[in-house]
Amino acid sequence: MTTNQDHVVVVGGGFGGLHLAKSLKRVPVRVTLIDKRNFHLFQPLLYQVATGALSPGDIASPIRAILSRQANVKVLLGEVTAIDVANQRVLLKDTNGGDSVAYDTLVLATGLTHFYFGNDQWADIAPGLKTVEDALSIRARILYAFEAAERETDPAMIQEWLTFVVVGGGPTGVEMAGAIGEIANYTLRHNFRAINPATATIYLVEGTGRVLPPYRPRLSARAKRDLEKLGVTVRVNTLVTDVRPDRVTLTSGDKSDIISTRTVVWAAGLQGTPLGRQIAEATGAEVDRIGRVIVAPDCSVPGYPNLFVIGDLAHFNHGREQPLPGVAQVATQQATYVAKLLQHRLKGSELDRSFRYRDLGSMATIGRAAAVADLGWIRLTGYLGWLIWLFVHLMKLVEFRNRISVFIQWAYNYITRNRSARLITREPTLVQEPELAMLTELEEV
Amino acid sequence: MTTNQDHVVVVGGGFGGLHLAKSLKRVPVRVTLIDKRNFHLFQPLLYQVATGALSPGDIASPIRAILSRQANVKVLLGEVTAIDVANQRVLLKDTNGGDSVAYDTLVLATGLTHFYFGNDQWADIAPGLKTVEDALSIRARILYAFEAAERETDPAMIQEWLTFVVVGGGPTGVEMAGAIGEIANYTLRHNFRAINPATATIYLVEGTGRVLPPYRPRLSARAKRDLEKLGVTVRVNTLVTDVRPDRVTLTSGDKSDIISTRTVVWAAGLQGTPLGRQIAEATGAEVDRIGRVIVAPDCSVPGYPNLFVIGDLAHFNHGREQPLPGVAQVATQQATYVAKLLQHRLKGSELDRSFRYRDLGSMATIGRAAAVADLGWIRLTGYLGWLIWLFVHLMKLVEFRNRISVFIQWAYNYITRNRSARLITREPTLVQEPELAMLTELEEV
Repeated sequence: MTTNQDHVVVVGGGFGGLHLAKSLKRVPVRVTLIDKRNFHLFQPLLYQVATGALSPGDIASPIRAILSRQANVKVLLGEVTAIDVANQRVLLKDTNGGDSVAYDTLVLATGLTHFYFGNDQWADIAPGLKTVEDALSIRARILYAFEAAERETDPAMIQEWLTFVVVGGGPTGVEMAGAIGEIANYTLRHNFRAINPATATIYLVEGTGRVLPPYRPRLSARAKRDLEKLGVTVRVNTLVTDVRPDRVTLTSGDKSDIISTRTVVWAAGLQGTPLGRQIAEATGAEVDRIGRVIVAPDCSVPGYPNLFVIGDLAHFNHGREQPLPGVAQVATQQATYVAKLLQHRLKGSELDRSFRYRDLGSMATIGRAAAVADLGWIRLTGYLGWLIWLFVHLMKLVEFRNRISVFIQWAYNYITRNRSARLITREPTLVQEPELAMLTELEEV
Repeated sequence: MTTNQDHVVVVGGGFGGLHLAKSLKRVPVRVTLIDKRNFHLFQPLLYQVATGALSPGDIASPIRAILSRQANVKVLLGEVTAIDVANQRVLLKDTNGGDSVAYDTLVLATGLTHFYFGNDQWADIAPGLKTVEDALSIRARILYAFEAAERETDPAMIQEWLTFVVVGGGPTGVEMAGAIGEIANYTLRHNFRAINPATATIYLVEGTGRVLPPYRPRLSARAKRDLEKLGVTVRVNTLVTDVRPDRVTLTSGDKSDIISTRTVVWAAGLQGTPLGRQIAEATGAEVDRIGRVIVAPDCSVPGYPNLFVIGDLAHFNHGREQPLPGVAQVATQQATYVAKLLQHRLKGSELDRSFRYRDLGSMATIGRAAAVADLGWIRLTGYLGWLIWLFVHLMKLVEFRNRISVFIQWAYNYITRNRSARLITREPTLVQEPELAMLTELEEV
């Protein structure tokens, strides 16, 4: 049983953490939401930033602004370095050193980060797509490749610049490859004088037997056809076995191809953020192969009823063959569940059921006006799939402004096949003084 | 007299260079437009990016896209390192080394960059506002200052974080200070729990006797009043004599104040880009105190009829007390003039008049719904000034999409006083391999 003074600390302002803070609006607790970024990112649309269709500001909202009217929430910009489970404190990286926040209940919702299967040297060459900076880096690389090809005179080098490899055939990889196909075939048409962007070669490489492996085979097949229409070469049952600045090695069975390319996007592996392993070590909880914390049926860490892990960082497998997928739906449903559980505890009762996931369907979009959507009771493809995809994503965008502005840009892009945010930018110089090192550190991913 | 094979090389894709390329649409010449960035930036609205009201993509358009339908223009992403006047070649920084472009006519339109009056060590502490990266850096610093203040417990440090100094009382400085006032007093209201953003102290420091010195005194007085309403302390007849990471020194006469602050924005000094001095040395042309090339009445470099300098980099003083101001109007009118001059030459005639500037007025905006506009025949202030400011800037935005999208964001901001692009971001990692060093270099400002 808890008291009115209950302090719930939430680490992470993604779908899970943000939704939890909001769900506690009418619950008599103090909430502190800690994130190392000052904004919530609508990650399902991040690939649109990486391909110049949207600006980062279109899919991000300041966490403070979202929660400004909720008096029981305090938002803290800070990086959590560790959890002191014994003393119930969250340790923050800070200029003052030793800054920490006490909690009565802790909810970890820090998600996943890239995983290169032990080949971390690939990270610089083949950026993943998790942060705004990742997206801007990928955008700059894709656009720059066409610029470099235009200036190049050696045909082999031109082809190298005009070859793009997307690693991983899940939703992110499919959407990235489709968007690059759009750019090459439509957006950049008439933009160059020496090269024809439509001659670009785009590979989508998937280790299993089909793209979108968790979807039904019929939808995978349709996605593959849609991708091929956009000039994407889909390579299934293929592993990436080496990544160099000017080439990747693709291996199918015992046969290997070397593809000369300058632009590789990593959409293949993910692993838990370090806080997951740290909390597991501190509590004796188990983590799975990719570092997710295996949680109890109520999303708590086994043996620690006031310690929860939700969203992508949680491995939840109760009553299921596979653990729950790392999608926003799971995170927000878990947040709702945990909020309800805490509310019951405050009343001195116990929630009489464990967490149950209700799958509302999954979808992925492929270029302009094509998507596959599986809502369980119905499966939609092509234009209809795209409309439902569009509707769901617009409705889900956190802020009213974002919805309108994003909708207009989409409408405009749809009509003109343009992509308006095609900027090659470099790093803005941030505060450099040693005493202000915090800024950079806070923002490291 | 020139021939149909005439090759016009334009360096710089700002207002002058872009407008020149467009003005040559129906002139039988080949045009090559070279810029080190792939986009044209609508610089008058850059302060809105620096203050979170707009995203970079809202005020930037890919140069290639703007000129895609103009078959006689080739766009090159590249950094010009020097002009070989004797051999009529433009030298480019390139991986291949020694890359160069021959020209028959050359137009330099590379503009100005920051000038710290010999104190280059101030640049890291007090960023100027010329590039997208500058704007994102300033945005991150302003937003971060409020975040740091929220976490701080020492009252003196809180005050230091909540103090902002804008150096320079020209249009950029006035607009920046007004926008910071808006953020502190309205945008961030209800966003923090420990601090009150409205207690922020904002200084606008101007060396002459009034803000907006080129405007009429009555407009300067009105701008000062509008700024004060937003909580900005205007310090005129005041010089910044030292800038440190945690303070600036303001000197009025023989009296000096030290202001503790963590956030300084430089809107004071500008100087010509290095190409200006290089071309002056190569041709024996004169440059002025800040490195602008003093041009002939037809905008050419004296003695070099096929070499032009237009826009901010040109010092044009014929028939005037003061050289022409560094505004978009001058650049585009000079571009129109030079295009006409070249067209005449192609026909074997000579344009019978030198360049004449027609001043269409100047304006600056101060926060929400307040601006000063001097159109010569009429002077507008307050809401009416703001409406005309809004109208002129929307109409001038290059792309249709930008106009609509920017308009919606403005309308939304106006109603809600919100600023939607409030992201603290760090540098995206660009290509790091040595053989790809070109990318980073091309993008250095």
